Amino acid sequence: MADSPNCDLKSLSPLQLFERVTEQGEKVRALKAGKAPKDEIDAAVRLLLSLKLSYKTATGQDYQAGLPPRDLVLINNGTTKEEDEDFVDPWTVQTSNAKGVDYDKLIVRFGSSKIDTDLINRIERATGQKPHRFLRRGIFFSHRDMDQILDAYENKKSFYLYTGRGPSSQAMHVGHLIPFIFTKWLQEVFDVPLVIQLTDDEKYLWKDLTTEKAYEYAKENAKDIIACGFDVNKTFIFSDLDYLGTSTGFYKNIVKVQKHVTFNQVKGIFGFTDSDCIGKISFPAIQAAPSFSSSFPQIFNGKENIQCLIPCAIDQDPYFRMTRDVAPRIGQPKPALLHSVFFPALQGAQTKMSASDPNSSIFLTDTPKQIKTKINKHAFSGGRDTIEEHRKYGGNCDVDVSFMYLTFFLEDDDRLEQLKQAYTSGELLTGELKKVLIETLQPLIAAHQERRKQVTDEMVKQFMTPRKLAFEF
Amino acid sequence: MADSPNCDLKSLSPLQLFERVTEQGEKVRALKAGKAPKDEIDAAVRLLLSLKLSYKTATGQDYQAGLPPRDLVLINNGTTKEEDEDFVDPWTVQTSNAKGVDYDKLIVRFGSSKIDTDLINRIERATGQKPHRFLRRGIFFSHRDMDQILDAYENKKSFYLYTGRGPSSQAMHVGHLIPFIFTKWLQEVFDVPLVIQLTDDEKYLWKDLTTEKAYEYAKENAKDIIACGFDVNKTFIFSDLDYLGTSTGFYKNIVKVQKHVTFNQVKGIFGFTDSDCIGKISFPAIQAAPSFSSSFPQIFNGKENIQCLIPCAIDQDPYFRMTRDVAPRIGQPKPALLHSVFFPALQGAQTKMSASDPNSSIFLTDTPKQIKTKINKHAFSGGRDTIEEHRKYGGNCDVDVSFMYLTFFLEDDDRLEQLKQAYTSGELLTGELKKVLIETLQPLIAAHQERRKQVTDEMVKQFMTPRKLAFEF
Repeated sequence: MADSPNCDLKSLSPLQLFERVTEQGEKVRALKAGKAPKDEIDAAVRLLLSLKLSYKTATGQDYQAGLPPRDLVLINNGTTKEEDEDFVDPWTVQTSNAKGVDYDKLIVRFGSSKIDTDLINRIERATGQKPHRFLRRGIFFSHRDMDQILDAYENKKSFYLYTGRGPSSQAMHVGHLIPFIFTKWLQEVFDVPLVIQLTDDEKYLWKDLTTEKAYEYAKENAKDIIACGFDVNKTFIFSDLDYLGTSTGFYKNIVKVQKHVTFNQVKGIFGFTDSDCIGKISFPAIQAAPSFSSSFPQIFNGKENIQCLIPCAIDQDPYFRMTRDVAPRIGQPKPALLHSVFFPALQGAQTKMSASDPNSSIFLTDTPKQIKTKINKHAFSGGRDTIEEHRKYGGNCDVDVSFMYLTFFLEDDDRLEQLKQAYTSGELLTGELKKVLIETLQPLIAAHQERRKQVTDEMVKQFMTPRKLAFEF
Repeated sequence: MADSPNCDLKSLSPLQLFERVTEQGEKVRALKAGKAPKDEIDAAVRLLLSLKLSYKTATGQDYQAGLPPRDLVLINNGTTKEEDEDFVDPWTVQTSNAKGVDYDKLIVRFGSSKIDTDLINRIERATGQKPHRFLRRGIFFSHRDMDQILDAYENKKSFYLYTGRGPSSQAMHVGHLIPFIFTKWLQEVFDVPLVIQLTDDEKYLWKDLTTEKAYEYAKENAKDIIACGFDVNKTFIFSDLDYLGTSTGFYKNIVKVQKHVTFNQVKGIFGFTDSDCIGKISFPAIQAAPSFSSSFPQIFNGKENIQCLIPCAIDQDPYFRMTRDVAPRIGQPKPALLHSVFFPALQGAQTKMSASDPNSSIFLTDTPKQIKTKINKHAFSGGRDTIEEHRKYGGNCDVDVSFMYLTFFLEDDDRLEQLKQAYTSGELLTGELKKVLIETLQPLIAAHQERRKQVTDEMVKQFMTPRKLAFEF
């Protein structure tokens, strides 16, 4: 635990040791930056070195910043990960492939279903709307039981949407917007209620934060979420720390999930160890419970059987695999899921972005100039080393981060296809492609900032007040 | 888990196996009593036999009803229990001594302090009241930091009382009243607020119960507690399932405790295993949190630093040792404690009473006739085999359950001493002693029943509504 960094190092998993080294490294940097007294810095450095030694002893490898221990944690309960497989869990995403995680393999490994053309066509028929670019381009690529949601929808049976965010710092980056942009579209085309969980309790448990600070982050993040344009009459945003104490239904569902999941199970799914605090161990139930409509009696009139659909990044799937396993045993419907790929870091698709590295991503607070500089300086290029080679052999869109970002944010399919062909053929240079991205992102982010400015504390309060929404149940 | 009795028997602890055999035995009896179909009874018997076999394999002993496995669980983190030591935890109390648990040894083992004459005299001076018979007679025998409570009280600094009950069935027995009778006295002599926790969530997690049923038991038990005569203006009774969802402070304290306790710790303190559900594993934090005044913002005006005093039976101490360990790390004062001995079963002081065996105790619902029959038929006697021998050698008050019960319920010290001498000398016969007990308990229980009849659902609601009490903070 954060309070006693020296004790019990031996009982930590390699992943936990890795996190401890990373944390301690950050602490040393902060002390140096803050010009702390020399003996304080020295003590912190000594601890850092001893943590690195423990890490090496445990893994046989030197600690490398940003590179968590590979093949040491299991993705699936009981199956060992092969050397060249990607690693994905709610805290770590890792692949050795510059194109990013192999999502087709992930579908097989997680046992979910691919979102294929048939399903996309069916969504189009059911809603009468052109499918969102995230569907057209395979950004939301996997699902569980989406066909059941559509069966029910076609029979005039409603459902609700549930997504969320762990509010770890005030600054959100563009990748954080992906689930919200898509969820907003789903809400509009299906016209259903939406609940958004801010897991400030999770952040309190995992980070060196007070509950007050975590709750403050939650409220700040709520502003960015609201700025995506959600309808206050159809959307309920809640902080766990706050809502758990104001809902007559939420805790009852949490304790029901907690009764039906053993430590052995969460150990297998999330890699918890005996040295983890009991808060972390029981937390998965808190992320599970909003999948059940009785957690929101004010919205659903106490009804227990309203189907839930969860749009989220694929790394959150372990929580909901667990939830789906428990659901029938507590008499609740299994939530359906729509999974997105990860938003790549500017440096390349091998890892998820990190809110703690300002150069790993475009933040929602970045100025037009910062956006331009970051993309020009840090966006990993699939272009060739020289203009001549590029003209001759062309660039590689599969690993080019600017192109990847455009697939997320450029709405015009034809334009995107033109850019792809021009870049691949060598006609378009890296600098030119980056310019298109800069010109796409700058107005998007400026507009977001404009909308966010208009989000008042009063509006946050409204969104976060438990209440009836504009739907009858 | 209750849902899948066949799986994972090997991963169960001997104590868990013991509980499973006991449960299954009860199920078989219920099936037989309910004249269930033969094949259903046969299947249940087969499971019972296989559970008994697993128990024997695990412990090397035959299963014996009412006799949990000895020396298999550790009382203290890391120290092994000796063969002849008593076993005490929140679920099991066991001793081989007919006089009951050796409480002096328990004080040493738990690291608490004896309530000695000096402390009792100090309580008398501070309150200006004659000490309660439970203090005079060593029924509340151990404490933690009671001197600090008195220091503060003498300096006009207030505190509050916290006690509780796990509502496992509608019927409470006289032993359940001990903490409430004493807490009521403490509340009256110190004039302080009182919070009473009904752990319906715990009962849901440990038993085969729905949340609705557990909550119903909580409300029923609240009636018996209210019938003890608590003042609604000074007392708040709460069900966890209910209050957790209506308090802005309770969950925040729970998650703070959960952050500072590891699975290793609860494993050591409570004997949890990897096969236990995550609800049990995180539950200790829920019993800990009411020790902090910020769990009750409506009573304490949000104040964090009001000292708490917990009167409880000594078997609850593990929860509060844990709480006291965590308190300073989350910036809260350690709760003080007053520990009582166990109320003996009618059959003798070796075990705690069991609410599931109607003949092990006097229930608050028993008629005068039932009380008389139970005492005459089941109260373990310290008398001799024949009248002649009894007259010659005298009876043994140390093991005589009727005499023990009188120490709990007969207010008159002189009368109790006379009875002891007369019984020890052989002048008083077992039947005569039993008669005194019957005549003491019958009116007490009749009066309780009379008061309970007057407790309306409306009154229960009042007691269980979060509100300001008649104190300023």
